[in-house]
Amino acid sequence: MAHVAPMDYQHLLEQIAADVAPLIGSGTPAEYIPALAGVDPRRFGMAIADLDGNVFGTGDWRVPFSTQSITKVFALALALAEGGDTLWERVGREPSGNPFNSLVQLEYENGIPRNPFINAGALVVTDRLQTLTGDASSELLDFLRQESGNPDIGFDAEVAASEQEHGDRNAAVAHFMASYGNIDNPVPMLLDHYFWQCSIEMSCADLALAGRFLARHGLRADGSRLLTRSEAKQINAVMMTCGTYDAAGEFAYRVGLPGKSGVGGGIIAVVPGRCTLAVWSPGLDAQGNSVAGAAALDRFTTRTGLSVF
Amino acid sequence: MAHVAPMDYQHLLEQIAADVAPLIGSGTPAEYIPALAGVDPRRFGMAIADLDGNVFGTGDWRVPFSTQSITKVFALALALAEGGDTLWERVGREPSGNPFNSLVQLEYENGIPRNPFINAGALVVTDRLQTLTGDASSELLDFLRQESGNPDIGFDAEVAASEQEHGDRNAAVAHFMASYGNIDNPVPMLLDHYFWQCSIEMSCADLALAGRFLARHGLRADGSRLLTRSEAKQINAVMMTCGTYDAAGEFAYRVGLPGKSGVGGGIIAVVPGRCTLAVWSPGLDAQGNSVAGAAALDRFTTRTGLSVF
Amino acid sequence: MAHVAPMDYQHLLEQIAADVAPLIGSGTPAEYIPALAGVDPRRFGMAIADLDGNVFGTGDWRVPFSTQSITKVFALALALAEGGDTLWERVGREPSGNPFNSLVQLEYENGIPRNPFINAGALVVTDRLQTLTGDASSELLDFLRQESGNPDIGFDAEVAASEQEHGDRNAAVAHFMASYGNIDNPVPMLLDHYFWQCSIEMSCADLALAGRFLARHGLRADGSRLLTRSEAKQINAVMMTCGTYDAAGEFAYRVGLPGKSGVGGGIIAVVPGRCTLAVWSPGLDAQGNSVAGAAALDRFTTRTGLSVF
Amino acid sequence: MAHVAPMDYQHLLEQIAADVAPLIGSGTPAEYIPALAGVDPRRFGMAIADLDGNVFGTGDWRVPFSTQSITKVFALALALAEGGDTLWERVGREPSGNPFNSLVQLEYENGIPRNPFINAGALVVTDRLQTLTGDASSELLDFLRQESGNPDIGFDAEVAASEQEHGDRNAAVAHFMASYGNIDNPVPMLLDHYFWQCSIEMSCADLALAGRFLARHGLRADGSRLLTRSEAKQINAVMMTCGTYDAAGEFAYRVGLPGKSGVGGGIIAVVPGRCTLAVWSPGLDAQGNSVAGAAALDRFTTRTGLSVF
Repeated sequence: MAHVAPMDYQHLLEQIAADVAPLIGSGTPAEYIPALAGVDPRRFGMAIADLDGNVFGTGDWRVPFSTQSITKVFALALALAEGGDTLWERVGREPSGNPFNSLVQLEYENGIPRNPFINAGALVVTDRLQTLTGDASSELLDFLRQESGNPDIGFDAEVAASEQEHGDRNAAVAHFMASYGNIDNPVPMLLDHYFWQCSIEMSCADLALAGRFLARHGLRADGSRLLTRSEAKQINAVMMTCGTYDAAGEFAYRVGLPGKSGVGGGIIAVVPGRCTLAVWSPGLDAQGNSVAGAAALDRFTTRTGLSVF
Repeated sequence: MAHVAPMDYQHLLEQIAADVAPLIGSGTPAEYIPALAGVDPRRFGMAIADLDGNVFGTGDWRVPFSTQSITKVFALALALAEGGDTLWERVGREPSGNPFNSLVQLEYENGIPRNPFINAGALVVTDRLQTLTGDASSELLDFLRQESGNPDIGFDAEVAASEQEHGDRNAAVAHFMASYGNIDNPVPMLLDHYFWQCSIEMSCADLALAGRFLARHGLRADGSRLLTRSEAKQINAVMMTCGTYDAAGEFAYRVGLPGKSGVGGGIIAVVPGRCTLAVWSPGLDAQGNSVAGAAALDRFTTRTGLSVF
Repeated sequence: MAHVAPMDYQHLLEQIAADVAPLIGSGTPAEYIPALAGVDPRRFGMAIADLDGNVFGTGDWRVPFSTQSITKVFALALALAEGGDTLWERVGREPSGNPFNSLVQLEYENGIPRNPFINAGALVVTDRLQTLTGDASSELLDFLRQESGNPDIGFDAEVAASEQEHGDRNAAVAHFMASYGNIDNPVPMLLDHYFWQCSIEMSCADLALAGRFLARHGLRADGSRLLTRSEAKQINAVMMTCGTYDAAGEFAYRVGLPGKSGVGGGIIAVVPGRCTLAVWSPGLDAQGNSVAGAAALDRFTTRTGLSVF
Repeated sequence: MAHVAPMDYQHLLEQIAADVAPLIGSGTPAEYIPALAGVDPRRFGMAIADLDGNVFGTGDWRVPFSTQSITKVFALALALAEGGDTLWERVGREPSGNPFNSLVQLEYENGIPRNPFINAGALVVTDRLQTLTGDASSELLDFLRQESGNPDIGFDAEVAASEQEHGDRNAAVAHFMASYGNIDNPVPMLLDHYFWQCSIEMSCADLALAGRFLARHGLRADGSRLLTRSEAKQINAVMMTCGTYDAAGEFAYRVGLPGKSGVGGGIIAVVPGRCTLAVWSPGLDAQGNSVAGAAALDRFTTRTGLSVF
C-alpha cells in the first residue's frame, strides 16, 4: 500500500533538513520554567517511522528532549483504551478558540474543557487515567517504553519539580474543575501525575515509533489492538482540530496532517495508514509551536503531497 | 486514480439513504426566519459528483433548497481567486470556539474575525468580493451557475427580505467591524449583498457539481484554474477546522472530511482528489447542522473508508 | 437648612480653582471625533447652583462646551418622569465593570444593558423617550433650556455629524440590542436622536442650574414636581455607582458624591438637599473623566466635608 | 450632632421589624455548605449602635450567626491600618459587574481583583494581613472582640471545615492570582486563614458595635485612631459601590447606605457620622443578599430619611 519506499524516507528527511536549515534557531525556547529555557535553540531533529517499525531520521533525531504536551496524545489513547467512551462526558472535542490556558471558556461551559489537548482537558484525562490505573504517570511511561522499544525513556525530575513550582495556573484550573465536580482524585495528587507526565523525555525516534498506533488504525507495536479503528481515527481528528494550541487552523492550513505539539519544541504528526513523524527544534512561535518543526512538516507534505487535503 | 467506479456511487447512495431513513425528520428546521421554518422536515437528498462531472443522487437530490451558509465557501474561493492572499490580513483561519454569532471574540481580537465561515468572517469576505467585483452577489450567482451547469439557480427574494428583516445581529457585527476599520463598503450595501448571497437556492446536484474545484485541486468545471493547488488545499483545511459552526471538532471526529453546513439543512463535503458530496435534510441539531445530513456523511466515510483520517 | 451661606460658595470656588490650577491642561482631550479634539485643553470652569437658583462660578463657567454623556442623566430623568418605572425592565442599575462600550456583558445578559449611563443603556433610554414623546432630542433640549433659564442652549451640528460619521460602534450596540427585541424605534432614527443629544452645548452655569432637581428631591426650577422624592434619590444612587464609566468606584472613593461625566470634559455632581455642581476642563484621564474636573470635586468635598460618606 | 435621640432607635427598630415581618422566611438560606443550610430561615434580628456605643436591638439581635463575607470589611480595615495604601496596588476599587466568584475579569485584568469585597480581592486582603501580622485570622478575631466588647466571639470550626471541603473555587482563585504573582503566602495557608475568617460567628449587636469606627470616621471603640478620616470615608465608598455582590447598584438605589452583606444572611450598614446598623435573616435573594435584611435597611432609610442620597 505504501507509495513511498523506505529508502525514500531517508533521502526525504535530508532534503527537508536542508530546506529548513535557515529557520533553525528562529523563535524562542519556552521560558516559563528554567529547565526548558536552558536548551540549545539550534537543535533540530526529525524522524519518520513506517507501519512496520522501520525508523529513519536526521539531525538530533536520537537526542531526548522534553515532550511536554505531546504526552497528552498518549494519555488520551490510554484513557480511551482502558476506560472507553465515557471519557467524552467529561471533556469535549471542539477547538478552544482561546489561548491554551484560558479559564474563561471553562467557566462558560461549567467546568467541561473544550478538548483533551488544552491543559484543562489533559488534566481531566490524567484524572481519568489515574482512577482507571491507580498510577497514571507510571502507566504512561511503561506504554511509551513498550511502543518505542526504548526502556531508557524516563521522567526528568528537575523539569517536574520546576513545573510544580510554577504550577499555580494548572492548580487553579484543576481546583476550578473540581469545583464543578469534574475531578475525581485529590488535586495535589492529580497535579503530581500531570507534571511527571509533562516531564517525560523522548527523542524523535522514540516518539515516531511510539505513535505508530495512530497510523496503524489502533494497532500497537506488538500487533495487539490498543484502540478500535474508529477510536484511532477519532484521535487523529481531535489532533487535527485541536492539536496545536490556538494555531490548529493554521497548522491544518499549512501542514494538513493531524499533529500535536509541545512547548519543548517537539511535534508529532500522523499520515494515517502510512507513517508517523516526529520533529524537534526548541525555538517556538507566538502560539507555542516549534518554528523549524512546523516548517519541516510543511515541507514534508509539500514534497510528498501527503497532506490529507 | 478513482478506486470506486462511477456505478458504485449510485449503489452507495441508496445504501446510505436506507441507513439514515430512521433519522429523517429528526431535529428542528431553522426557525429564525419564517421562510425557512416552513420547509417540510421530511425532505432528504444526497448527491455525489466525481472529478469528471458525473453526478449521482438519491431522494430529493434535484430539489432546490436554501443554501444559506454553504455559499460562504464559494464566496471565499472567489475572493481568493480575484484578490489573493491579502484577504487573510482581515480574517483569521482559526476555529472560533464560540457560538457562530458571538461578538465576544471579535471584540477581544480587535474586529478581526476568527475565520471566514462565522458570520463576521463571511461579511468580511463579501465586503472584499464587493470591492473586487463591484457586485458580490451577482458574481457569486454567475459562478455557481457556471460550475453547476444550471442556469436556473437563483436568489429567493422572500428569504433575502426575511433575512434583512431579522438582520439586526448581522448589522451589529458589520458595524462593529466597521468601527475597527475592517469593512470597506457602506454597511447597508454590504448587508444587502450578504443577505442575497445567503438566499441562493440550489439542489444537492447543483452543489456537488459546483464544489468540484475543491476536489480537483482548484480546477474549474471547464478545466481552467480557479485556485492554486495550495489555495484549494487551504480552503479544505479551513472547512475541516471551521466549517460546521461550533461542531467542527465533532464533525471531523465523526465524518473526517472537510465540510460546510448551512441552516437550510444542507452540507457540502469534499474527498480531495476524488469527489464532492452534497446532502440536504432540514432538521437541525443544537449546533445548527442537519441531523440526517451529518449522519449520511458519517455513513459515507464508514462505508467507504474515505475519511481523511 | 443650608450650613454654607451663598457667599461662601464664591470664595470656595476661588479656593478650589487655585488648588487645581497646576492640573489644568493635564490629561488628553477626547480625540475620537475631530470636533472635540480641537478644544483648548487649558479651559477650566466650575459652577455651583444652590436650591434657590443662585448660581456661583469661577473661570470659564459661562462658556458652552460639549456636554456629551452628561445629557444621559437628563434623558433618564425625562424618561422616568414621562414613562415611569417600566423603563427598568429594559435597563439595569448595576455598574458594568467593563470599559464603557463593551458588548461582552450585553451579550451575556441578553441585550439588557447594565445601567442607563453606559452607551447601550443610554440608547435604550433615548429609545424609550422617543416612543414616549415622538421627538426625544428636542424634548430634552427644551427641558434643559427651561431648567437652566437659558434659551440659547443648542445642538452643535458639527459634533452631531461627526458622532454619526464615527458612530459604527454605537450602531453595532443599537442593532445588537434590537436583535434581542430591546429597541422599539428604527435604529437609524434612534441613532440620530442619540447623536443630537450628545451634541448639546451648555456651560457649567447651565448644567448646575439644570441639574437642581436632583438636589431638590425631584422639584423642577418652577417648583413643579418632575420626579418623586424616591425617583430623584434613585437617580443619584445610579450616578454614584455608574456615573463615571469604569471609574465609579474611584470617583466614589475620592469625591464621595453622585456624579456624571462626559468626554467633553464636563462633570455634574450633586449634594442632595443642598446644591448642584458642574465643572469643566477638557483634559481626560485614561477612564475618560476630566483630570482637573475630578480634582476640583475632590477639593470641594475635602474642603467642605460634604461627601456623602 | 445626632438628630435622632437614643430612645427613638428602639422604637424605630420595632416599627421596622413589624414592617418586614411578612418577608421573614422569604428567600433561601445559602446551601453551598451544610453548616449554613441548616439554619432556621425564620430568624430575624436587627441592631443599631450609636457613636457613643449605645446599642439597640430587636428580634434575634443577640443571637450569633455566621458572618461570612461581612468580615471582609474588618479585614480590609485592619490591612489598611497596619500596612497603608500600598494594598491598593494589589486590589482595585471598582465594582466587578459579574457574579461574585467570576474568574473572567481576573484573567482580563492580570490577576488584580476589581475590589476587596469579591472573593478574589478578599483573598488578597487576607494575604496582605497575614504578611503584616503573621496570623491574619487571630488578629481579626481579636479586633472584633475588642471593638464589640464581647470576648466570646469565636470561630465556628464546623463552618471553617465545611468551607475548606467545598473550597475548590476559592483555591482556584488563589492559585490563579498566585500565577500572576499577586499572592505572597503559600496558598494552602492563605486559604486556611480565609476560611477561618469567614467562619466567625457574631450577633447583630456585636457587628453594629464592631463597625462603629466606620461611622466614627476611623476612631475605635477606645477612642484611639484605627484609620484616618479619609481612609474611613474610602471604605464606606467601596462598601457603597461593591459591598453587596452583583447587587450594589440595586442596594444603593433602594437603601442608599454603604453596606456589606454575607451569605449567612447578615448585612452591616453605615450612616456616616451617626450610627452603624446590623441586620440578620438567613433567606437570601438570587444575588446572595438577605431578603428581609435588605428590606429592613430600606425601611430604615425610608422612615428616617437618612439615605446618603
